[in-house]
Amino acid sequence: MRGSIGSMLLDRLRHLGVSRIYGVPGDYNLEFLELIEQTPGIEFVGTCNELNAAYAADGDARLAGIGAVLVTYGVGDLSCLSAVAGASAEGVPLVVISGMPPWHAIQSRALVHHTLADGNYDNVLNCYRQFTVACARLNPATAVAETDRVLQAVQALRRPVYIQFPSDICYVAVDVPPPPTVAAVSDPGLLARAAEQVVRRISQARKPVVLIDAMVRQYGLRERVQALCTTFGIPYAALSTARTLLPESGPEWLGQYGGAASAPAVADYVQAADCVIALGVRFVDSTSGYFSQQIAPGAMVDVQPFSLTCNGENIQGITAADLLDSVHQRLASVRMARPERIAPPAAPTAPAPQGEGWAQAPFWRRVESFLQPADVVVADNGSSMTAMLHARLPAGCSLLVQPVWAAIGYSLPASLGACLARPERRHVLFIGDGSFQMTVQELSTLLRHEANITIFLINNGGYTIERMILGPQSAYNDIANWRYADLPQVFDPDRAPRTFRVASMDELETALDQAAAHKGVNFIEVLFTPMDAPAGMAKMGAAVRRYDYGIDLPDQT
Amino acid sequence: MRGSIGSMLLDRLRHLGVSRIYGVPGDYNLEFLELIEQTPGIEFVGTCNELNAAYAADGDARLAGIGAVLVTYGVGDLSCLSAVAGASAEGVPLVVISGMPPWHAIQSRALVHHTLADGNYDNVLNCYRQFTVACARLNPATAVAETDRVLQAVQALRRPVYIQFPSDICYVAVDVPPPPTVAAVSDPGLLARAAEQVVRRISQARKPVVLIDAMVRQYGLRERVQALCTTFGIPYAALSTARTLLPESGPEWLGQYGGAASAPAVADYVQAADCVIALGVRFVDSTSGYFSQQIAPGAMVDVQPFSLTCNGENIQGITAADLLDSVHQRLASVRMARPERIAPPAAPTAPAPQGEGWAQAPFWRRVESFLQPADVVVADNGSSMTAMLHARLPAGCSLLVQPVWAAIGYSLPASLGACLARPERRHVLFIGDGSFQMTVQELSTLLRHEANITIFLINNGGYTIERMILGPQSAYNDIANWRYADLPQVFDPDRAPRTFRVASMDELETALDQAAAHKGVNFIEVLFTPMDAPAGMAKMGAAVRRYDYGIDLPDQT
Repeated sequence: MRGSIGSMLLDRLRHLGVSRIYGVPGDYNLEFLELIEQTPGIEFVGTCNELNAAYAADGDARLAGIGAVLVTYGVGDLSCLSAVAGASAEGVPLVVISGMPPWHAIQSRALVHHTLADGNYDNVLNCYRQFTVACARLNPATAVAETDRVLQAVQALRRPVYIQFPSDICYVAVDVPPPPTVAAVSDPGLLARAAEQVVRRISQARKPVVLIDAMVRQYGLRERVQALCTTFGIPYAALSTARTLLPESGPEWLGQYGGAASAPAVADYVQAADCVIALGVRFVDSTSGYFSQQIAPGAMVDVQPFSLTCNGENIQGITAADLLDSVHQRLASVRMARPERIAPPAAPTAPAPQGEGWAQAPFWRRVESFLQPADVVVADNGSSMTAMLHARLPAGCSLLVQPVWAAIGYSLPASLGACLARPERRHVLFIGDGSFQMTVQELSTLLRHEANITIFLINNGGYTIERMILGPQSAYNDIANWRYADLPQVFDPDRAPRTFRVASMDELETALDQAAAHKGVNFIEVLFTPMDAPAGMAKMGAAVRRYDYGIDLPDQT
Repeated sequence: MRGSIGSMLLDRLRHLGVSRIYGVPGDYNLEFLELIEQTPGIEFVGTCNELNAAYAADGDARLAGIGAVLVTYGVGDLSCLSAVAGASAEGVPLVVISGMPPWHAIQSRALVHHTLADGNYDNVLNCYRQFTVACARLNPATAVAETDRVLQAVQALRRPVYIQFPSDICYVAVDVPPPPTVAAVSDPGLLARAAEQVVRRISQARKPVVLIDAMVRQYGLRERVQALCTTFGIPYAALSTARTLLPESGPEWLGQYGGAASAPAVADYVQAADCVIALGVRFVDSTSGYFSQQIAPGAMVDVQPFSLTCNGENIQGITAADLLDSVHQRLASVRMARPERIAPPAAPTAPAPQGEGWAQAPFWRRVESFLQPADVVVADNGSSMTAMLHARLPAGCSLLVQPVWAAIGYSLPASLGACLARPERRHVLFIGDGSFQMTVQELSTLLRHEANITIFLINNGGYTIERMILGPQSAYNDIANWRYADLPQVFDPDRAPRTFRVASMDELETALDQAAAHKGVNFIEVLFTPMDAPAGMAKMGAAVRRYDYGIDLPDQT
């Protein structure tokens, strides 16, 4: 089939499942934008800036499977590089498209704006190479092959890719074959050997456990893992990076594991296991209680996307999906003792007693019961994430957090992507004031799209997460105190969004009642003192202080 | 002298003239922040996000000579990379310091947050290498030498440098010698030869002209160039990147030169010159009317920071400063005809006639007379910059624009830096709604610091500069319509800033009167229709459309 380079790229993106592209217009991407406007089934979602566009695409991709970004060269793609690196760190597939200066300018090394004006057109590409699994500059002669190479990489490796699209080649006519199929393949012999090893380890274990990480979302393994655990009664735990990927109730659910940061019952169970089927597990400082994980010697069965390490042997040439399928099949024909059942998790925390003073502890307890099944809960780094990782979430909730890249400000634009990816679900965002100020403008886009989201803005006068580490009273941790609850009215004067300022349990009750009844944007500003924080923050602060600065000090609180 | 690595770095920065460091706290830079709080003569200025911190440092450096940024690793330094690249493109010296994970973690390739959690600690550095003139990761063993190497580079090459500062080495004790002196040196023989050539060219010319670019600011050459031009009566013109560096009145001032985008009298003069002393000139698309400059064959005498190209010969091993000094000395002893005087520039545009309708043209004419001598005028890319580059500015005004990197949103945080660098001057910012939404949060920091600035927010419903290129009615060029004038009240409720919404000449008069009388933040929202734009925008749009997309179409208006 003949087509243009622009329409070929759009067709390929739709074929991958992309239906929304987040971004900002710029003079090098306008022709492609015009094409998007004319193309059914794919929509451009303008954001206020490029960093927020990539965060939004990240939030979208975590629920819809893949995200896409369209920006302009230099000023645009560099502005969202941090968010793209974040998607790479957290295993989120994104396609980042940068409208580049025209091919004739690149060829003649012309001195154009949005470059260093030195004829160098490689520096931005060199940056993107650091944080993506494939990059390409589309060239009229090889555009289709290069597009397919890059899009195969995002499908196979499930992390960001980057495409430079010179402004003047959008309508170049090319031969467009059907999109190639991407099927990651296992070597049958190696797969059999790997599966046998895993099956032997599980069936011989007194106490096997499955420990999941973000790979389960990244490679779409949820159903496989769940089937394995429930069919064979294998208990499972999740790192903070993998919360809500599998059901968080039922006899096999253990809880969140993160070394010394885990609930004691979960830590005891995982650390006593003689076979830990670790699915994509990376123990990162922030997900392991600062490397306090204690897996029993020899217990680790390390399944990575394309490898198994087990009994001192590393087997490549397989895929985790094939391995899980094969293990499932083989286990079905093995007699194995039903693993020990564990005690069901504790019942939800009781609501705060009447008359308790206003503070974060009763606030977080109370909002737990505001959450409903199937909510999408987004929590920014700092107090909000700490609290939500300790909360019990109703069945079917999705928790979106970013503990590895850990950029404050991520959650507000990410929830825009989440809202557009799953408009039928209710979304609930928890974000601190310092984080909110980073990316505040995207509240406007949430309002513009009439998102169904309740936003809790935790106003505690600055960077409490940093105060817990160093400088509890230092001026650099203070920020300006905005009238946050007045912002929705400024950003969307015509729709009179529902806003509340809350500084007592009674005011909270009123706000929660009204927010629960109102589908749309609810904005609830909650006021706390600077050093009031959820359980675990002070301990975390002490651990960071020790690791980063070598300072042993008691909690700052 | 013995000192700590942290205090050594702070001393070196103060020695360079840094008295403000813009940035955001993060867990890897807190100990250094504590040290800044304890150090007199250097101040940390917290911004709402890192991109804005680097823009602020850029604005500060354009007036104070050098700027500094302190952020945290990964999430911080990558977020401000675009602004640092912008400083590089525009020749602005910045020192970017990134608080990095602790040295022990780097050495053990630990999987920590704010990285890809793969043990790779080089990817961010690889990005910064693309856009800086020197980079270093401070190491306890070589920290002083590495600091001096990098800081010599920023002094000598006057573009950004980047320092990675591991969190745990701040108090490592080191021997601290006095800071090295940086004196760029010329080879005496080559300098003499270069100066002779330039002198011969000037003295033999019938019509010499000096054409200045950003190098004059970047290398602090203003006094030298001005002395040369006035002493010998050589007319001078400035590219848009070099406006207000030299006095824009007097018999030698020609005007702004940018090829076909120049006023006809200026273009005629420059293009008829038989000797163009070009000081750091780069003809970039956006500064040359899309490469429409027409310098007479053989007329160019190309002075760059460390070289001269003249009469087909390239001489290195000299500095522009030494060359200018030497040329000045030698010219004094050469008999040369006083170059032709030119007609004085046209008188300021008459104020708009009473009763003229509300539109951009009379608005820009009217605000020209609002400007006062010594104002710092900051104009964002798009309509505001286009208008200000056509305006006549009173004596001693500084115009801050970013025509090469051309990032929308630059000007709001840049004006924060300008206000703090020159608090004794009045600042005036012109910014469009699309640009403003990019970096809106830094309005909060302007208010927090009680900056002396009048902000004109040009509300024309979206990206008018893009509409002029493609998609005048396309949805992607629309943005949400905020109640902009309500924002100061939200960001700074206690100070009741002065705000105005203006949609007629009468309302404008009232706002200008009150703003002129009020020292502090004045916020004036001016409302226009989307396709109303300053003179020159439609023509510029057509040029971009032709260059970027190969489309020949009449103006979109």
